[in-house]
Amino acid sequence: MNNCGIGKLITLEGPEGAGKTTQSEALLQWLVKAGYNPVVTREPGGTDLGRRIRHMLLDAGSDITDKAEILLYAADRAQHVEKVIIPALRQGRIVLCDRYIDSTTAYQGYARGLGTEFVEQVNRIATGGLVPDLTLIYDIPPDKGIARKKSSLDRLEQEDLEFHRLVREGYLMIARREPSRVKVINALNDIETVTRESVEAVKTLLRG
Amino acid sequence: MNNCGIGKLITLEGPEGAGKTTQSEALLQWLVKAGYNPVVTREPGGTDLGRRIRHMLLDAGSDITDKAEILLYAADRAQHVEKVIIPALRQGRIVLCDRYIDSTTAYQGYARGLGTEFVEQVNRIATGGLVPDLTLIYDIPPDKGIARKKSSLDRLEQEDLEFHRLVREGYLMIARREPSRVKVINALNDIETVTRESVEAVKTLLRG
Repeated sequence: MNNCGIGKLITLEGPEGAGKTTQSEALLQWLVKAGYNPVVTREPGGTDLGRRIRHMLLDAGSDITDKAEILLYAADRAQHVEKVIIPALRQGRIVLCDRYIDSTTAYQGYARGLGTEFVEQVNRIATGGLVPDLTLIYDIPPDKGIARKKSSLDRLEQEDLEFHRLVREGYLMIARREPSRVKVINALNDIETVTRESVEAVKTLLRG
Repeated sequence: MNNCGIGKLITLEGPEGAGKTTQSEALLQWLVKAGYNPVVTREPGGTDLGRRIRHMLLDAGSDITDKAEILLYAADRAQHVEKVIIPALRQGRIVLCDRYIDSTTAYQGYARGLGTEFVEQVNRIATGGLVPDLTLIYDIPPDKGIARKKSSLDRLEQEDLEFHRLVREGYLMIARREPSRVKVINALNDIETVTRESVEAVKTLLRG
């Protein structure tokens, strides 16, 4: 259980194109039908400050060092945790968050090579140690994920496939290390199957 | 000696209104006359990214948590250290930097109560451990410093005098703890005296 009251923090992770948004919407519908009053949010960009930071980060023209990038994500996260996530958990609500600490570990720590230990130190500073109750990783081979994405690619998406292979490895490493928190879902299956597995994982959490 | 080559990093610290800008200009003139090719810079805002961050931070309307604020400063610092300070030190240049790690320790760690240990952890992450060769703290009682400031007050300056008293205490604590790096200069003296003391401290460093 998280350390902020009776709510539950559920995070959705995975590369662009894996279907996180679709699954977030499906989980939202299921939770509402089941009588819950969930909060849907995301990182980066879950607060006004965060949206400004997100704009800086995704601006393909920016010349941002790896360390400055991770600290900007951390600032967004600190604001988001304090202003959005913790107040909702204290009200006993379920928070569905699109990307959280594991994105930083997989993208910056693992794929960009800043080191998972360093990134986890930054994550702890930003979150004050708030760890999700459940994390769903939507797993998909990088070439499949990128092909699904129809709009133009932003800076992160322009990185080559090798980078995305490392991101996937990073995610799978997290799942191996924390099996009680993290569930890997095969995002190549049809949407209904993926949704059913997502809902099952959430049901198990809420029963527990 | 810093760990980035043959240059020297000199930081200027103290509250708004203590005369850091005037002394930075005087030191620049002295260094140029003495045959050096110094770099003058500042935090926050010493890079393009930093200027965007500075704008967010100083915008009085922003509703920024303490932790998000310190992480934004840290992002600015990481970018500045990597893009400006370290390249200059590697060229053997003297870097005069208006505010650096001690501002964060005094303002956020001490006065805002985030804790100096926490702030120093963030500082180490942002700087990779790059500590100044010399730090000049321009010390002035808070009521005198604020009275000198003619333009309108920004968000940080709007904080009450008690906050500025704590900032001063934080700076003096740093000076007691690190006497070989940090020199406290009484900024209530006339400009010529303050400049003479600043130049003497720099001369001692360059002789050493």
